[in-house]
This record gives sequence, C-alpha cells and structure tokens, in this order.
Amino acid sequence: MEHAALDLSLDSAALTARLVDIPSVSGTEGPLADAIEQALRKLPHLTVDRHGNNVVARTHLGRAERVVLAGHIDTVPIADNVPSRLDDEGVLWGCGTSDMKSGVAVQLRIAATVPSPNRDLTFVFYDNEEVAADLNGLGHIARTHPDWLAGDFAVLLEPTDGEVEGGCQGTLRVILRTEGERAHSARGWMGSNAIHAAAPILARLAAYEPRRPVIDGLEYREGLNAVRVSGGVAGNVVPDECAVTVNFRYAPDRTPEEALAHVREVFEGCGVAEMIVDDHSPGALPGLSHPAAAAFMAAVGGTARPKFGWTDVSRFSALGVPAVNYGPGDPLYAHKRDEHVIASRIPHCEERLRAWLTA
Amino acid sequence: MEHAALDLSLDSAALTARLVDIPSVSGTEGPLADAIEQALRKLPHLTVDRHGNNVVARTHLGRAERVVLAGHIDTVPIADNVPSRLDDEGVLWGCGTSDMKSGVAVQLRIAATVPSPNRDLTFVFYDNEEVAADLNGLGHIARTHPDWLAGDFAVLLEPTDGEVEGGCQGTLRVILRTEGERAHSARGWMGSNAIHAAAPILARLAAYEPRRPVIDGLEYREGLNAVRVSGGVAGNVVPDECAVTVNFRYAPDRTPEEALAHVREVFEGCGVAEMIVDDHSPGALPGLSHPAAAAFMAAVGGTARPKFGWTDVSRFSALGVPAVNYGPGDPLYAHKRDEHVIASRIPHCEERLRAWLTA
Repeated sequence: MEHAALDLSLDSAALTARLVDIPSVSGTEGPLADAIEQALRKLPHLTVDRHGNNVVARTHLGRAERVVLAGHIDTVPIADNVPSRLDDEGVLWGCGTSDMKSGVAVQLRIAATVPSPNRDLTFVFYDNEEVAADLNGLGHIARTHPDWLAGDFAVLLEPTDGEVEGGCQGTLRVILRTEGERAHSARGWMGSNAIHAAAPILARLAAYEPRRPVIDGLEYREGLNAVRVSGGVAGNVVPDECAVTVNFRYAPDRTPEEALAHVREVFEGCGVAEMIVDDHSPGALPGLSHPAAAAFMAAVGGTARPKFGWTDVSRFSALGVPAVNYGPGDPLYAHKRDEHVIASRIPHCEERLRAWLTA
Repeated sequence: MEHAALDLSLDSAALTARLVDIPSVSGTEGPLADAIEQALRKLPHLTVDRHGNNVVARTHLGRAERVVLAGHIDTVPIADNVPSRLDDEGVLWGCGTSDMKSGVAVQLRIAATVPSPNRDLTFVFYDNEEVAADLNGLGHIARTHPDWLAGDFAVLLEPTDGEVEGGCQGTLRVILRTEGERAHSARGWMGSNAIHAAAPILARLAAYEPRRPVIDGLEYREGLNAVRVSGGVAGNVVPDECAVTVNFRYAPDRTPEEALAHVREVFEGCGVAEMIVDDHSPGALPGLSHPAAAAFMAAVGGTARPKFGWTDVSRFSALGVPAVNYGPGDPLYAHKRDEHVIASRIPHCEERLRAWLTA
C-alpha cells in the first residue's frame, strides 16, 4: 500500500493520527520506517542512518552534550482499531496511539522544529520492541552501530502518562538445584530426600530482607522471590532432585556481576548442588544527577518515579547512557483494543521537551 | 482350553508346575479358580465357598483356634515363560513359580493332606492381587463375606524366601497446600509468596526424627518424606499456590486415625492452608505374641523380619486378624521373565506348615 509522505508541519496530535494510519505491527515496520526516513532526509540539519527498519537521525553541532530521544515504531497486532479516530472530546483512538506513536510524533516534531538545539540530538526509531527480546531493533543497533546511540542522557518516549520514570531494575533468574538419593518411601532411610534438602533455600527466601536504596532521589525496591519449585518422582519414591527457580529484581546500583554474587552469597551454605543462571537483564541507572537530566527534570516538572520493571532504558544503560521513560500515552491502555491518547497531552509533551532543548 | 483336574496327591513342586501350566493372568483366573474349586470339593473335611473367582475352603472341627492360609492365584502377564520347565538342577522356571503358585501349591497340599489339624483351617485363594487395589479379590471377600476370613492368625504364602515377614507398615499420603497472593515479581511486595510460605513445612520434614518402635519383637522404621513439591505460575510472577505431597510410612502400632493426627501435629503452625488426604492404607500388626503365631514361629524357625512396605496382610489386620507373609518363592524373581523357584524349597515350606498344624 502506498502512503502519502509524512508532513512534519502537522501538529503532533494530527501527526500521531497519520502514524497510526500507517500500520506497523512488529515485523511489518517497513512502510513506516520508509516514511520516517524520507521525512527526516528532508531536514538539512540532520544526518540520517538506516539499519534494517531502524532509522537514526543526528545533529552535529559540536554541543557539549548529546541527548537521545528514542521510540519504537512497531505495535501489537491491530484489533479493529485502525485507522485512527479523533472523537468530539479530543480523544484519539487507535492501535499505537498510546504505545507509542504519540511519542514517535513528538520525536519527529522536535526533529523538524528544533534545528539548533542547546544539546546535540540523536533521534532513534526502532522496530520489534513488542516481540522477542532478540529481535529488538534497539538491541540490534547497540550491537552493530553502538556509536549511533552515543550520548549523555536518553529519553524513551514510552507511555508514562506524562510522568518521568527513571532507570529500571535488573532481573536475574537462577535455578537452585538440590540433590539426594532415590529410594522407596517405605525404606526412606536408604535414600536422601532432595526436597527436604531445599528447606534452607526456602528458609532464606522467607527471611530475606530486600533493600530499598535511594538512587538519584528515587527509591527502588528490590525483591527476591521463588517463582517456581518442582521435585518428585512418584508417590512412593524419595526424590533425588529438586529445583527452586528464584527471581532477583535488583536496584540499578548493582552491576549484573554484583547481583549474581549477592544471590550466591544469600544461598551460601544452603546445600545448593548447582546454580544455573536462567536469564539475566541488567538494570539501568536513572542518571538524574547528570546536568542534562537535571535540566530535563526542571523542564518537564513533576517528580520522577523509579521504574521497577525491566525496560529498554536498560539497553542505553548498558552503553553507558543513563535513560528515563517519558511520554504522552497512558500505559494503562497500551496493548488494548480501546487504546487511546488524550490528544492535548501530545503537544504538551512536545512543548516540555522543546523548552528543555532550547532553553 | 480344557485342563485336566488338579491331582493333589502330587508333591508340591510338581503341583506348582501344574498350576503354572494353567495360565491365570489377572482378570483371567476363571479356569484356575474352577480347577482349585473342583479339587477342594473332593475333600470331605472341607466346606467350599466361591465368590467370583475367589475360593474359600474351611474345616469345622470346633478347634480353639482358627488359622488362615491365603494366596492369590493371579500372575503378572506371561513373558514367554509358560509352560513351566524343571531343569536338571532342580529349578522350576515359569510365570508364577515364585509369585505365588508355589505358595498356592503348599496351601492345596495342606488342605488335602491334613484332614484333622490341631487348629481349624481356612484356605483362601483370591484373584486380582497384581492389579489395581479396588479389584483385589481379598478386598472383595472382606467387604462381601468378612466371616469367611475370620480367624486368630493368618499366613499369606507370598514369596519371602522362606523367612517370616511380620505385619506391615501403613502408608498415608497427604497434600499440604500453602497460599499466597499473586503479583508481578518486579513488584513482589504487592503479593505474598506461597513457595516461601512452604519453608516451615520443608524445615519440619528435614528435622523430623522418625520412630523405630519394636512391636512383637520386630523393629519397624517409620518415615516422613516429601514425595512431590510444586508451585509457580511464570518466571516473573510471585506464585499464589504451592503444594507439598508428603508420604508417612508408619508402624502398625498406630491406627490410621492416629497416623493422620500425628501428621497434623507435625505440621501444626506451619501455615498450611489446606491438608488433603490423597491416599491411606493402614498397617498390620504382626500379632506374633498370639499363641498360634508363637507356635508357627517355633515350627518354621528363623527370626521374623518386619515388613516395611504395604502388603495384603493389612487386609486381614483390618478384620482383626494378625497376619504374616511366609512362602517358598524368592521375591527377587517375582514379576521377572526369568521367574523361578528352587523346587526343593516348596515341600520344605509345606513340611514346616504341616509340623505346625499337626504338632
């Protein structure tokens, strides 16, 4: 299907509607990436790079600082909610209105209307955020062109209902195995019970006191939870194996190595036969003490909240770029059939960013 | 298939071979039950009753005591090991030689050759022992004609390699459920972890000190084991449910009610949300202090061993009849393709019983 070129002189709410009307379910972002690339290439103050369906545009003004504005261009599957529809009360309905084509519209508007920002700017538009982590376009750029993502501070325009969500916690999942010796339960003394051997592990978990560290003024809350336990051979057999899967959600002042070392320490002396790392995604520091971030907070107002769940800001953090989420959409309506955004919030968000980048 | 009538004047090893040659895999015991019934009905000192493929024969001599000799007539499926074969070294091979047609042959020989025993005798031949408990012929008789099983002491001629195995332990299986509240593991404090709630249960199990009570001179060994544990919703969810399945093997000095009360007491205060009885089979007292049993032990010699696993002697115990296992077969070869019995052990067992019942 042919789409008219994107007109970046539209206001950001109208531009959001245009973006929604170019479908871009994960894996089918080509037409939208094309439209974004074409629109950006018309802007003489930007260089534009493309990798697959990921588009990166940058100023090169020699400013002391560089900030990154990033957003994914894909959506979850359409649910009878495309094309977009603006109702009489100023609510824009449609797939991606909140998550996160309204944020992408703000990126494009800043790119088009702030040719001489006080900080060098990098705009990142990436694909496949809504699907498996290994497909994520931001991850692909980070691996293939990490220099494209260089910067002092990054803002992901994910839906946050206009609040700043700083950094994110890391998540580590490990499997703790205990061993025993199989025997008929009528002669239990002939064996050794691997489920009983897991008792100290559960006791440590039950007694664990999670930290609540304050980082850049944000209070994080760690947590160490068993998310699965399994063991047993048959109703009359002393089992020789048991496994407790533990999920450690950790504040971003711990490195992945420190997080793993902490978990090892917690279960020291618990008779763990083997500890297997099942999954590990590091956290991301909010970086709110950086001058660019402080100026950002002053411009957008409000109080930043810590992000407990894992998000793509962590990918910037892994590259040494502190990052926050800040966008016009309401996360409660993301991925829903009745996804929508209050249209007036979109230019509001745009103005806050413009104020920050032109002060 | 027509089978020649059973000739009870054969020696017990030859008679075993004849019994093996009448196949009686569980569910197909009819021809063998017919042959046994016909042979017993020729003996004027016995009354004979039949229920399905279960045959019971009794003397009515007005003796002070009555003992029961019982055996199942079914076998596991045939594995190219019928008809029977006696080799040059006096080993009789074939399906059921050990478990337990050699024992049934001894029963039949005693029935035929001891017309005036010192104790009234009851001979029980029952079906479906090798399959599901609810099909077991001894259980059927116990429910429909418990008077047929009345007695002061019972001997099951199961293979014990010529040793007496007294009574048996009971087995109780319960499921201990813990509850919590589901939450995303990134916000674990919003929920409550049901796996952590199981920590006190595993701690009690790990610390449990089983009894080793001596009953009628036999040392039993109890055991309390987790045989299964399961909990978990997903890798990022605080689980709201966990279940530990526990198997209590208990000595026969506890009644089923006492066993259940004991398990309740062990897990008192452990935060168990629900305790479900999954399976319960009571134990059986060895009853070796009874005069008939003492005379039996004196006649057969050796030292009785406790039976840790659950056996059909428990069905007699439930009717108030202490019971032991004692038979010529070797239990190590039961259910095996190379099942066999040393032929000379069969008349040996027969002679020991005859000595007891004619002294």
